[in-house]
Amino acid sequence: MTEPTLFAESGFLRLRIHLAYDGTNFSGWSTQPQRRTVQEEIESAFEKLVRTRVGTIVAGRTDAGVHARDQVIHVDIPEFETGPYQKKINWNLEDLPYRLNRILAEDIRVLSAAVAPRGFHARFSGLRRKYEYKIVDSNRTVLPLARYDVAPWYRPLDLALLQESSALLLGENDFAAFCKYRPGSTTIRTLEEFSWLRDGYGTLISKITADAFCYSMVRNLVGAVVCVADGRFDSKWVKELLDNRQRVSDSLVFPARGLTLLSVEYPPDGELLERIETTLQRRGEAYAAREEEAEEG
Amino acid sequence: MTEPTLFAESGFLRLRIHLAYDGTNFSGWSTQPQRRTVQEEIESAFEKLVRTRVGTIVAGRTDAGVHARDQVIHVDIPEFETGPYQKKINWNLEDLPYRLNRILAEDIRVLSAAVAPRGFHARFSGLRRKYEYKIVDSNRTVLPLARYDVAPWYRPLDLALLQESSALLLGENDFAAFCKYRPGSTTIRTLEEFSWLRDGYGTLISKITADAFCYSMVRNLVGAVVCVADGRFDSKWVKELLDNRQRVSDSLVFPARGLTLLSVEYPPDGELLERIETTLQRRGEAYAAREEEAEEG
Repeated sequence: MTEPTLFAESGFLRLRIHLAYDGTNFSGWSTQPQRRTVQEEIESAFEKLVRTRVGTIVAGRTDAGVHARDQVIHVDIPEFETGPYQKKINWNLEDLPYRLNRILAEDIRVLSAAVAPRGFHARFSGLRRKYEYKIVDSNRTVLPLARYDVAPWYRPLDLALLQESSALLLGENDFAAFCKYRPGSTTIRTLEEFSWLRDGYGTLISKITADAFCYSMVRNLVGAVVCVADGRFDSKWVKELLDNRQRVSDSLVFPARGLTLLSVEYPPDGELLERIETTLQRRGEAYAAREEEAEEG
Repeated sequence: MTEPTLFAESGFLRLRIHLAYDGTNFSGWSTQPQRRTVQEEIESAFEKLVRTRVGTIVAGRTDAGVHARDQVIHVDIPEFETGPYQKKINWNLEDLPYRLNRILAEDIRVLSAAVAPRGFHARFSGLRRKYEYKIVDSNRTVLPLARYDVAPWYRPLDLALLQESSALLLGENDFAAFCKYRPGSTTIRTLEEFSWLRDGYGTLISKITADAFCYSMVRNLVGAVVCVADGRFDSKWVKELLDNRQRVSDSLVFPARGLTLLSVEYPPDGELLERIETTLQRRGEAYAAREEEAEEG
């Protein structure tokens, strides 16, 4: 097993890989004993292809049931003595998605693979993560083929109230009220976007973007603004929650099935290294330390 | 068990019900021993609600794995001695979809239920059935959350050739080449629409409409025009198949997963009875006889 490091070590090639998955039948990203996880499936597929176990680092560690349309990971692959890795095993890097997809089940797909630029770290050089949350309200019928990534809700939800209360949470804030407490982790995040629309079928769709998210933060934010939009509280209540920094009851957490990681954005290649520094400083940690805090909506 | 009849018998109320289902985990519409079928799930749900086993008649008997966005069925429900069925059991007909959906698994949804107009027969008064077939060609990645209703194809398909060869099959024809042989059944059908487009994601989408379809007809038609669009045959070959009325090899049948019954169209209420007569005459059968021919793409 190659342990992940901040930079690719000598003799290793760092690959940047994009993935999509249907989270329904996964116990989330992170490897756990006796559970089917995305990480384990990907690392096993790599092991079959390159005959070495390689560790993966992911941009957004999604929880059980959460989907991804464009997740980003990196892996450090041994280059071998005889030259670059892709020559040694006699096929091109462009074929890697196809070869991995032949091994993987249909609920994970490798979208692309390329040699990562210097300073690229899937997690620490990420600028922002963008999530989507979908709700079918008023007990309306969820069409069977669309059921995997929407959360049903029994009450009607007022779109204007969703928008109004979500807007109160934007900006750099301490989101302690919406994060599971983890000792040593900061809960300060910059929420850049938290918007809502109703599509042509009446499905409510939220886009939620931040530099990073704490564990269960997106699903807590959604649960809080739904309390406003179905009439239980007024908008000010959401702002008070934020200001009080008291963890919101777990009962507000919306189900994982409605949540999809849409994409992860990185700075231009020349700014990747700087971004790693900024991220690690912001999180108040030494360069060498690897955080164990899960990043997920 | 109430056996289906052409018209609702005295003391029975005929209901027209619209359904959607994800066919992935069903062995098709029709009840079969030891298999999970849509018909069995629906009839069991009714039995729980109205405490009588009622038979269902369906507009399009979909095969294993085929989906439906708006399938139509009818059921004849006993009115009971004390008055109309819905009064006796103390809830309104409008609540029927909700009550059935609470019993049914998420892969079947009842969309609506209403008392059927006189002369309504889900199967025999149908004017036309509209299907959709989706293909992702060129070995492109099928996104995990979209994988349930598309068929992957390894070769690139030429859209113009799909359109050209499909158009050659339009009109009233003997589709024997594309139907599984069943003694006593006609294979003459009117193919009203067989069009193709490529959507924004590059997925090929076909709309296929006819008065009715024989068993596996849609999937055979798709298989035949794909042979033209990927360069194996020229368009004339499709027309020759049709004219020869020789059953096409089973190897051309495209997979069920790409196929969805979109909708079933009926004439205005005043013409329902006449339509039943036309259908039965066309199929060369006596009024009383119930055909056993499966109608499915």
